[in-house]
Amino acid sequence: MQKPFSLKSYKDPNPDLVDKLVQRPGMTADHLDSVIDEVFQEVRKNGDDALLQYTERFDGIRLTNLNLGDEEKYGAIQKLSAPLKSAIDHAYENIRTFHQTQILEEKKIETDPGVMCWREARAIEKVGLYIPGGSAPLFSTVLMLGVPAQIAGCEQVILCTPPGRDGSIHPAILFAAEKCGIRNCYKLGGAQAIAAMVYGTTTIPAVYKIFGPGNQYVTAAKIRAQTLGVAIDLPAGPSEVLVYADQSARTSFIASDLLAQAEHGPDSQVVLVTTQNDLVETVSREINNQLKALPRANIAAAALQHAYACIFESKEEAFQFINQYAPEHLILSSDKSASLIPLIRNAGSVFIGNWTPESAGDYASGTNHTLPTSAFARASGGVSLDSFVKKITFQEISKKGLQRLGPTIIELAKNEELMAHAQSVQIRMNNL
Amino acid sequence: MQKPFSLKSYKDPNPDLVDKLVQRPGMTADHLDSVIDEVFQEVRKNGDDALLQYTERFDGIRLTNLNLGDEEKYGAIQKLSAPLKSAIDHAYENIRTFHQTQILEEKKIETDPGVMCWREARAIEKVGLYIPGGSAPLFSTVLMLGVPAQIAGCEQVILCTPPGRDGSIHPAILFAAEKCGIRNCYKLGGAQAIAAMVYGTTTIPAVYKIFGPGNQYVTAAKIRAQTLGVAIDLPAGPSEVLVYADQSARTSFIASDLLAQAEHGPDSQVVLVTTQNDLVETVSREINNQLKALPRANIAAAALQHAYACIFESKEEAFQFINQYAPEHLILSSDKSASLIPLIRNAGSVFIGNWTPESAGDYASGTNHTLPTSAFARASGGVSLDSFVKKITFQEISKKGLQRLGPTIIELAKNEELMAHAQSVQIRMNNL
Repeated sequence: MQKPFSLKSYKDPNPDLVDKLVQRPGMTADHLDSVIDEVFQEVRKNGDDALLQYTERFDGIRLTNLNLGDEEKYGAIQKLSAPLKSAIDHAYENIRTFHQTQILEEKKIETDPGVMCWREARAIEKVGLYIPGGSAPLFSTVLMLGVPAQIAGCEQVILCTPPGRDGSIHPAILFAAEKCGIRNCYKLGGAQAIAAMVYGTTTIPAVYKIFGPGNQYVTAAKIRAQTLGVAIDLPAGPSEVLVYADQSARTSFIASDLLAQAEHGPDSQVVLVTTQNDLVETVSREINNQLKALPRANIAAAALQHAYACIFESKEEAFQFINQYAPEHLILSSDKSASLIPLIRNAGSVFIGNWTPESAGDYASGTNHTLPTSAFARASGGVSLDSFVKKITFQEISKKGLQRLGPTIIELAKNEELMAHAQSVQIRMNNL
Repeated sequence: MQKPFSLKSYKDPNPDLVDKLVQRPGMTADHLDSVIDEVFQEVRKNGDDALLQYTERFDGIRLTNLNLGDEEKYGAIQKLSAPLKSAIDHAYENIRTFHQTQILEEKKIETDPGVMCWREARAIEKVGLYIPGGSAPLFSTVLMLGVPAQIAGCEQVILCTPPGRDGSIHPAILFAAEKCGIRNCYKLGGAQAIAAMVYGTTTIPAVYKIFGPGNQYVTAAKIRAQTLGVAIDLPAGPSEVLVYADQSARTSFIASDLLAQAEHGPDSQVVLVTTQNDLVETVSREINNQLKALPRANIAAAALQHAYACIFESKEEAFQFINQYAPEHLILSSDKSASLIPLIRNAGSVFIGNWTPESAGDYASGTNHTLPTSAFARASGGVSLDSFVKKITFQEISKKGLQRLGPTIIELAKNEELMAHAQSVQIRMNNL
C-alpha cells in the first residue's frame, strides 16, 4: 500500500445503511452450475478414472492410486517435527475435552399414563471430511472434524484432501487424522472429491454427510450434494471477525485480531464495532504498524479495503447491529463481558476479554472452528458433537395408555380426514 | 381394484436388489427450476402484489389482504367443536411435555487451566411455519412446529397457509396457532409463501428459518431458500412407513398401519419387513378386508401398487435392510423390542410393540411428526426443540491460561503459515 491505511467508519448508521453493511458476498455463483453439473456427471459415470483425470488437470499430478498406503502414511508422520506433534497433541486434548461435554443424556418421559417417549442418539455411520490443500495444510480442521466424529463413534470416517504437485499429503494432516482414528485418507480435492463422496466410486465410499471448508467450487458442490440427499455441515462463505471494543480495549490487540482475519483471503470480512469515537484512528495506526511485518501483507491489505468500523452511542445499539450482522467470530474486547453476553443473540463463537484472541478458538481452546458464516449464525450454530449424531424418537404405549390416548388420536385423525389413521387406533381399541 | 390386492414380496433379496428396493422417488424435478425462478423473481420484485396474484391464480380467491384480522380469527375459533378443541388440548400437552425434556444444560468446562469453554442456546429470532392447505387442514403440524418454537422462545413466529376458495383458514389451524402463541397467520400458500418468507414483503416479514411440509413446489422452493442463506427444517419427500413384524405381530394391526401410510398419497412409501414366511399373505388378505371401508381407498390402493414386503431369515439381516432403508417411521410389531432397539441405526421415529400405532406419533403421543424422509434419516433426526435454537460457543482465557496455551497456538498457526494468527497471540504474551 502506498498511503497509510485508514479503516472506513460509520457513526450511528441508519437502518438502510445497516442493511447494506451487513450484506456478505454471495457464496456461490450461477456460472459454477455448469461446472458442477459436468463434474458430478463425469464422476458418476466414470468413477475413479474421472477422479484421476481431474486430479491431473487441477492438482498437476498423475496418480495411479487415490489411496494412501500405510508405508507412505507412517513414513510421512515420522518426519513431523516434535514441537508440531506436541502442539497437535495439546490441541487434540482440549478439543476432545470440550466436545465431550456435549454428550447429554435425555430422560424418558411418560407424557400420558402408559405413554413412554424418549430420544436416543446414534452416530451417523458414514461421514466424509474434506480438508482443503494449497500452500498451507489445514491440519487444524482435521482435528475440528475428526475429534467429534471420533467421540460420536461414526463407523466409517473418510478424509479427502488434494495432493501436492509431488503427489503427497502434508504429514501434519496425516498425523492429525491418525490421532482421530481416521483410517482412510484419499488424495483427492475439489468438486470431484465431493461428487465422489456423494456417488461412491471403486476407491471412494459414498457417505451420508460431508463436512469441511473449501473454495467456491467445493462449496457449490456441497450445496449440490445437499439437493441429492447427502447432508452437509454448513455452507461455508468467506471467514469473518467482528470485534466489539469499549474503553477497556487495547488497540494493539484489536489490530492484531483484525489482521489475523484479514490474512485468510482478500474476501475475508473484518468489522470493528465500538462505542469509542477515537478508537478507529488509533486502531488504523496500529494496523499500519503491524501490517508491514506480515508475510501475507498483500492479502490482508486487500481484505482491509472492504473492512469497516461502526461507532454507536450505546452498547445496546452496538449489539443490535452485531445481532443483525451475526458474525462467525465475535471478539468482546471489554472487561465488562458479563453484561454483554446476555445481549448476544446471533454469533458463531465468542471470544471474551482482552486475553482471548480468535486464534485460540481457531486452534486450541477446545471450541470448534467450523462455524456459520454469511449471517447463517442467525439460524445455526457451528459444528459440534451434535453434527455427527442424529436423534431418533421412540414411543411405547401400553394397553392402558392407548385406552386413554386413543380417542384423542381418533378425533384428530377424523378431522384431518385420515380415516385409515383413525382405523389403526380403533382396530387396536376393539382388541383391548 | 378389480382383483384382490396382494403385496409384492422378496425373500432374502441380494445386495443389488436391496440397493434398488431402498430407492425413493426424487424429491424435486429439474422442470420445477424455472417455475421456482419465476416465483422468486416476481415476489422479490413485486412483493404483496405478486402474492395476491399468485393466490388468485392457484387458490382461486382474490384477496385484498393476506393478513388475518383478530375478529376473523376469534370468530372462526369460536365455531370449533368442543371435542376437537379438547383433543387438540390433549395433544398440545403431550407434545409440550415431551419437547420440554429436550431442554438440556451443558456445563462450562476448563479445558486447560485458565481456559473456560461453554455453549449457550439462543432461540432463532424469526421463524416461519408453512402449513399445507387443501381438503384436509393439517392442524397437527401447527402443533408439531408451534410447540417447540414456543418452548424455545422464538421472538417472531409466523404461519403461512393457503386460504380455501372462500378465503378462509380452517378454524382448527387458527386454534392450534393460538395455543402456540403464534400471533401472525397469513393466507398464503405454495412456492410464493416460501419466497415471501425469504425476501420479506410489506405484509410478510422475512425469516431466518422455514419449517413445514408441502407439495413438490413448496419443497423445491425450500431447497432454493436454503441456497439463498435461509435455513430449512428438512427437505420433505413422500411419507414412509416400514413395519417390522415377527411371530408376535398381529396381522390386522399391521394391515391397518400399512393402510394408514398408504392413504397419505399415491406416492406414499409402504414397506413390510418380516422374519415370518406366511405373514405376507395373511397381511395382504387383511388389507383387502380393511381397504373397502376407507374413504380414501383409491389413494391407498395406488400407493399399495409400489408397496412391498421383504422376508429375511434372521432379525439381524432384517435390521441390516431396515438401516439401509432408513425409514421415516419404523413400527416394531414385536413383543421383543428390547432386543431390537440396539439394532436400529437409522430411522426417524420408532413405534414399539403392538399397541403403538404410527398415528399415535402423528398426533398425540408427544413426539414430533416432522421427520426425515427419503433415507435422510441416515444423517438427520426429525424436528425437535434443537431445530428452533442454535448453540453459540464461548471461551474466556485468563492471563495464566494464555501463558500456557499461547505457545501451542503459535506453533500451530506458524505451521499453517498464518503469521498474523500467531502474532495476535504473541502481542498479548508480550504484554503479560
